[in-house]
Amino acid sequence: YSIGVRRAPPQAELVRELPSYGMNHPQRGLCLVFDNEEFHWTTKMNRRRGSHVDAANLKALFEGLGFSVEVLKDKEITEIRQIVHSAALKYDHSQSDCFVCVFLSHGEDGMIYGYNGTVPIKELTDMFRADMCTTLKGKPKLFFIQACRGAKHEIPVEPSDEPDGPVGGGEAEPMDVVDTGVRPTLPAGADFLMAYSVSEGFYSHRDTVNGSWYVQDLCAALRQHGSNMEIHEVLALVNRMVSCREVERTTDQRSLGMKQMPCFLSMLTKRLVFTPKN
Amino acid sequence: YSIGVRRAPPQAELVRELPSYGMNHPQRGLCLVFDNEEFHWTTKMNRRRGSHVDAANLKALFEGLGFSVEVLKDKEITEIRQIVHSAALKYDHSQSDCFVCVFLSHGEDGMIYGYNGTVPIKELTDMFRADMCTTLKGKPKLFFIQACRGAKHEIPVEPSDEPDGPVGGGEAEPMDVVDTGVRPTLPAGADFLMAYSVSEGFYSHRDTVNGSWYVQDLCAALRQHGSNMEIHEVLALVNRMVSCREVERTTDQRSLGMKQMPCFLSMLTKRLVFTPKN
Amino acid sequence: YSIGVRRAPPQAELVRELPSYGMNHPQRGLCLVFDNEEFHWTTKMNRRRGSHVDAANLKALFEGLGFSVEVLKDKEITEIRQIVHSAALKYDHSQSDCFVCVFLSHGEDGMIYGYNGTVPIKELTDMFRADMCTTLKGKPKLFFIQACRGAKHEIPVEPSDEPDGPVGGGEAEPMDVVDTGVRPTLPAGADFLMAYSVSEGFYSHRDTVNGSWYVQDLCAALRQHGSNMEIHEVLALVNRMVSCREVERTTDQRSLGMKQMPCFLSMLTKRLVFTPKN
Amino acid sequence: YSIGVRRAPPQAELVRELPSYGMNHPQRGLCLVFDNEEFHWTTKMNRRRGSHVDAANLKALFEGLGFSVEVLKDKEITEIRQIVHSAALKYDHSQSDCFVCVFLSHGEDGMIYGYNGTVPIKELTDMFRADMCTTLKGKPKLFFIQACRGAKHEIPVEPSDEPDGPVGGGEAEPMDVVDTGVRPTLPAGADFLMAYSVSEGFYSHRDTVNGSWYVQDLCAALRQHGSNMEIHEVLALVNRMVSCREVERTTDQRSLGMKQMPCFLSMLTKRLVFTPKN
Ligand SMILES: [Zn+2]
Ligand SMILES: [Zn+2]
Ligand SMILES: [Zn+2]
Ligand SMILES: [Zn+2]
Repeated sequence: YSIGVRRAPPQAELVRELPSYGMNHPQRGLCLVFDNEEFHWTTKMNRRRGSHVDAANLKALFEGLGFSVEVLKDKEITEIRQIVHSAALKYDHSQSDCFVCVFLSHGEDGMIYGYNGTVPIKELTDMFRADMCTTLKGKPKLFFIQACRGAKHEIPVEPSDEPDGPVGGGEAEPMDVVDTGVRPTLPAGADFLMAYSVSEGFYSHRDTVNGSWYVQDLCAALRQHGSNMEIHEVLALVNRMVSCREVERTTDQRSLGMKQMPCFLSMLTKRLVFTPKN
Repeated sequence: YSIGVRRAPPQAELVRELPSYGMNHPQRGLCLVFDNEEFHWTTKMNRRRGSHVDAANLKALFEGLGFSVEVLKDKEITEIRQIVHSAALKYDHSQSDCFVCVFLSHGEDGMIYGYNGTVPIKELTDMFRADMCTTLKGKPKLFFIQACRGAKHEIPVEPSDEPDGPVGGGEAEPMDVVDTGVRPTLPAGADFLMAYSVSEGFYSHRDTVNGSWYVQDLCAALRQHGSNMEIHEVLALVNRMVSCREVERTTDQRSLGMKQMPCFLSMLTKRLVFTPKN
Repeated sequence: YSIGVRRAPPQAELVRELPSYGMNHPQRGLCLVFDNEEFHWTTKMNRRRGSHVDAANLKALFEGLGFSVEVLKDKEITEIRQIVHSAALKYDHSQSDCFVCVFLSHGEDGMIYGYNGTVPIKELTDMFRADMCTTLKGKPKLFFIQACRGAKHEIPVEPSDEPDGPVGGGEAEPMDVVDTGVRPTLPAGADFLMAYSVSEGFYSHRDTVNGSWYVQDLCAALRQHGSNMEIHEVLALVNRMVSCREVERTTDQRSLGMKQMPCFLSMLTKRLVFTPKN
Repeated sequence: YSIGVRRAPPQAELVRELPSYGMNHPQRGLCLVFDNEEFHWTTKMNRRRGSHVDAANLKALFEGLGFSVEVLKDKEITEIRQIVHSAALKYDHSQSDCFVCVFLSHGEDGMIYGYNGTVPIKELTDMFRADMCTTLKGKPKLFFIQACRGAKHEIPVEPSDEPDGPVGGGEAEPMDVVDTGVRPTLPAGADFLMAYSVSEGFYSHRDTVNGSWYVQDLCAALRQHGSNMEIHEVLALVNRMVSCREVERTTDQRSLGMKQMPCFLSMLTKRLVFTPKN
């Protein structure tokens, strides 16, 4: 038989304390935001009004945390694959702390919609596995997924008349679109974290003027606590904020009970805090 | 149209800070440990040697954290459903901080094996949803799942000769059984956390004498940090400890690369620490 | 490289004509009918009133075609596995023309319900593959599956008042239970045929007094044509008979459009006719 | 309650005999052949050498049976959806006997590959349901699917040196590519038939010079018997011809046992024979 090459560090040492991911590289890292608002008619997917608002919010938020952000609008599935492929296999992350990727689109059971069709999320996350994307080995890889079922299930409800509602919004009367959650995809290995706007059996809400509930609360929580609160606790706070929201005024009885419940799936192996770089 | 009954608390207030789950009820709560080591031949599932060691470890650990623990050995699927049904719909959790349930068995894509067949995990977790199990509403419900694919995939490998290995173990030469991970099931709503010993595409290791890698490291981490470290960080530490383990000596080349990578899926909405009751 | 042992018969010869399965063995063969009407409460499955009527009809029909029929009532999953295991691996089919197995129960996506839980249909059919059940090699293996979704989806509708309706039936007012179809399971290899009472997206009807629409029409078609019509054409006739049926009187609007559409999935390699043995 | 509008014809009449589909319309009907040999690198799918040979064979075969055939080469998913959409919702089939559609591509679990991505087969077949494509109501709709798993699974084997092998084939030494079968998609309603080149768990063979085994044998069987043999029997003959084929010479032991087993899934309600139009 063959003798294992490296002595596995005894568990007794490992259990003593949970180290933190190194956050002192020259750069925070790359952040891709796929913002799909329009879809080719053949996909039968409705326009996702408010998605661009989400993208702008996320760009400002992650730039505030030190990321270099790229927003990619209404890309086709071939472009999405090319962009992710080069981010994973060409981009040099050796000077980066970590990597973030956000999908804002429709989605079904592990699939995300591009402009003209679907791509399995697992196919995209797998490109960042340690054996494929070596410069991110041992570094956190975070995927935020705001994907809901799509046209067939959307139930328009009217958002509540918050005083600070949009005054002279050129947009038509703001509408809150309700859509059902999708089944989360599995992370691809160590140091991955997958955060979902909504889990199966619940409903994801998107205000056509202020953007989706999830992105609004994710940005608020990260803006306030991102630089000193551990990521799992920030995401638990987002779970709480979104789940406390309620549909206030609606013309459609069904939507009254439509609670939204995000969830996150973690394979992180250290504490993650976006400590500011001096 | 209808006006929403309750004014949703403005997000501005919610975002200020992440509260903790109340841990000052008279009791910590109920902890069920389903320990399935033997299976009826018609299931074609191998005996899971070492499972009882896991169960004993977990019972000591959770009792140390204040839980009242019930270990249920080799139950049939009808018994598993009856026990979980009464724990969710008859047991009075109003005096409890939280609820824990552990499954030690074989499993396939969202199914867990009882002595004579399979039960969908989702069917069991759904019984604890807020609308069904009202005395656990707003309280954390934790499910730990040590479930691997089963017979067809098990590859016997020899554990490394750690000096502190079992001296005169009556058991035959200790064996480390490697089995493939299953696809995690989805949590059933707010305040659920699902922790998996291994995620799809990886391998779960079970030492026939010391018990599975996952349960050994879960118990060590909770014993050392359970009373003062937030649960998500404890589970990140377990991710780290298990993923650092390596198969040392093996007669089967294939098993050399068989890393294990646990994961957890959280819908918790507050910080969770098992602060000791004075 | 290695040379193939047997010269594959040139396709030019094979294409000339479609031979028939040999139907001149001493016996027609074994026919198992699993008749599950009652279910343990933990399965949450409703009683399938009328199932025993189906079983009696099928027993008379297949005995008429020369089979030796065994009806198995409300068996648990372990018993179902034992019975199928011995039929596949112990029973000597060398004197038989073929083998038939009928499931009358609830079912979900490739699963069939026993009294206390589910069994994957594929696990049962796989036991009859040529390499496992050698005495049925090259002989037709037919599986008829009357399985519908189960409790959650059942919508009681009243059967039409046909003049020849049951006069003084002790049974309560005859009821037609509507249930949704399940996804057919895949056949396990050459010479298998899987016939389903209903395909996904449609509804299966079961008259609590006369039995299910599918079994009633299957028995009528086989009784009239079984001894001289090729099996695929008999099953096309059953497709036609069932699809022409309509829900006549109903208290529930939804059930009006609930057409039933059976389907069959064939890997047969020859003509199959139950030609009578002189 | 509401009384059913139409008296359902009593089953006693229906069971008397199986009528045939009307084959005396002015035209036989439209036949679409999607021939995907090349794929964009982002799909990671290998080139399907020999696919164009299949397409040419099918065009000659179906034109011989009276169809007006359109071969569509290497279309993108948006084009496939547009073409099928107009065939189902714009094309006037009122003068046609039936409709045929053939897919020659890679595929995974109910998906078919276009040049740049995947399309769910069910989404395409559903467009021909009676309520959507009224001019094909009650007429047979046949889908032939030559789809295999794709790159990851392809095992090159050398075809046997049959004397009548390709003489001066410009093509490199003829190669037989072996690929695994996919799970058949479900038919979409009455009068549909889905024929698959291979079912799950088996292997589909494609000779890079003579085309795939399935299409070669399908064309041979339909050319010889199409005008007088019922379609289910023709397809049983194809099952037999393909399953009798064997890999003769191979450099790869694994491929030796790689039998191919087609299957077909029928919701036809009448006999179907392509009786020649005088
Ligand atoms: Zn959506
Ligand atoms: Zn296992
Ligand atoms: Zn049912
Ligand atoms: Zn392929």
